[in-house]
Amino acid sequence: MLAIGVDVGGTSVRAGVVDEQGALLDTARVGTPGGEVALEDAITGVVEELRNRHEIGAVGLAVAAFVRPDRRGVLYAPHLAWRAAPVGDRIAKRVGLPVTLEHDANAAALGEHRFGAARGAGVATLVALGTGIGAGLLLDGRIFRGAHGVAPELGHLCVVPGGRICSCGKYGCWERYCSGTALAATAIELLARHPGRSTVLAREHRGDPGSVTGRRVAGAARDGDPVARLALAELARWLGEGFALVADVYDPEVIVLGGGVSESAPLFLDEAREHYAHAVTGAGHRPLARIRTAQLGDEAAIVGAATLAREETARSNR
Amino acid sequence: MLAIGVDVGGTSVRAGVVDEQGALLDTARVGTPGGEVALEDAITGVVEELRNRHEIGAVGLAVAAFVRPDRRGVLYAPHLAWRAAPVGDRIAKRVGLPVTLEHDANAAALGEHRFGAARGAGVATLVALGTGIGAGLLLDGRIFRGAHGVAPELGHLCVVPGGRICSCGKYGCWERYCSGTALAATAIELLARHPGRSTVLAREHRGDPGSVTGRRVAGAARDGDPVARLALAELARWLGEGFALVADVYDPEVIVLGGGVSESAPLFLDEAREHYAHAVTGAGHRPLARIRTAQLGDEAAIVGAATLAREETARSNR
Repeated sequence: MLAIGVDVGGTSVRAGVVDEQGALLDTARVGTPGGEVALEDAITGVVEELRNRHEIGAVGLAVAAFVRPDRRGVLYAPHLAWRAAPVGDRIAKRVGLPVTLEHDANAAALGEHRFGAARGAGVATLVALGTGIGAGLLLDGRIFRGAHGVAPELGHLCVVPGGRICSCGKYGCWERYCSGTALAATAIELLARHPGRSTVLAREHRGDPGSVTGRRVAGAARDGDPVARLALAELARWLGEGFALVADVYDPEVIVLGGGVSESAPLFLDEAREHYAHAVTGAGHRPLARIRTAQLGDEAAIVGAATLAREETARSNR
Repeated sequence: MLAIGVDVGGTSVRAGVVDEQGALLDTARVGTPGGEVALEDAITGVVEELRNRHEIGAVGLAVAAFVRPDRRGVLYAPHLAWRAAPVGDRIAKRVGLPVTLEHDANAAALGEHRFGAARGAGVATLVALGTGIGAGLLLDGRIFRGAHGVAPELGHLCVVPGGRICSCGKYGCWERYCSGTALAATAIELLARHPGRSTVLAREHRGDPGSVTGRRVAGAARDGDPVARLALAELARWLGEGFALVADVYDPEVIVLGGGVSESAPLFLDEAREHYAHAVTGAGHRPLARIRTAQLGDEAAIVGAATLAREETARSNR
């Protein structure tokens, strides 16, 4: 059976047709509109577009939201138009297919477990560094969603005592140090602290402060920019400290690093592994988690949502 | 079937005979000796003593240690004589009964799930405040032990940014603010900061600084001592913040507060609940965990270890 996965992001709605081997056969995309009705129109639109070209059995939506335990509605979506909305039911009615909702990081984790870096792991945690930190936990291949469909929420664990203030009101939250946004912020701080040291990045920042994004910092580090490298070393340090917290709470067999920042993993992941091995509680007396880079790239949530929808539909048809 | 549960603590080895309804029928106790051989002699001794009086089918050991995934040995016990020791196998050989090991907080959590405050909860977390913080997570009634038998380790989550230094090398760890030890430390700090305010506690501290224990602070608060009350208000605040972290990572249906400090829960738990409700990520947009006081007191680990041993033995005999 083919299924459609839809990654409903803050910028775009991206959909794909996924087969039983996790291959992405076809895609469609549209910008994310404001407003509940327009958003559901957009989702319905990409689903109908793909359906015209393929025989589809189920639809999975990956959303940056707390999802209802029955996976048919949204509880709360801080960056989308929905508030306590039966999104799944409404879209299912419109497209005439079963619709399964899942938190986007959970969906990505499931994708990585079925077809990527977490294949076969009994306890697997996905940590996705993007605008913030998304996280997913798979236990024996099943998404752990807690009692209310909310867990896990790791971006606001305090990793840097007394560190930067966060929009959540606390200080030193993990995602203020390990995300694309954070990487840019760190580089800008370091530029101010070392006015003589950088070359390319300093020049770019003087010309257009907005040009220093996480992606740009990683690019500059690859080109040998010393301040960009310092920024990545700082990210590596706090990433390792955060992994130690992940090990404290979940003791996973594998931690998969995903999200846009993970594309630059060769620049910082070995260093993060070393910090992790030192920082974990009981260091030296316990097995360490394997830390791996995600394999499905930014399609993990699409593949995961489609796969979950297929599996759930097969289960309910049994 | 009757089973024996043994709580192997740093001070004493306490054993009890537990029936299938979780009732404690008989107990035995001995001081914890130093050295591996003497410790196993002591455990064997209390087991044999109880066995002489009851027909026993299994033995469960609750230990403050990382336990091997097969529950037959210890990986690492910071406060006991064992290092990577096949304790379960050795004691099983000596007493001629199946022996199951479990981390003491996990055992207590299981006890509370079967017969106490977490009965019937799908996702339940035990947070035990004693010398430090012990924690256990039960998913659908089964102990979650992670991939390597280590999770969960919550005492070293950073709850107070830039706070007190911890023996683990980090600052502001939860157990440095929420434990019996921490409650005493907070009271002593407050006595120094408010020299005129306290009466009983200040006098006692001048007479014998060692007399200000967590238990004594709780007692003084009950008697209206203003500094003791401030100390408990501070504990309540950080307890609530820590519960918010617990909700972030596990999203439990119920959080059970156990350990010695929980005996004074009426003095601080309502306040902790309020802090928790404010501090949790997505506050106001998600269901809250119920927060309850443990019901089995300091026998939870004995009851839990015995029950686990009985259940495991029944399963392997099937």
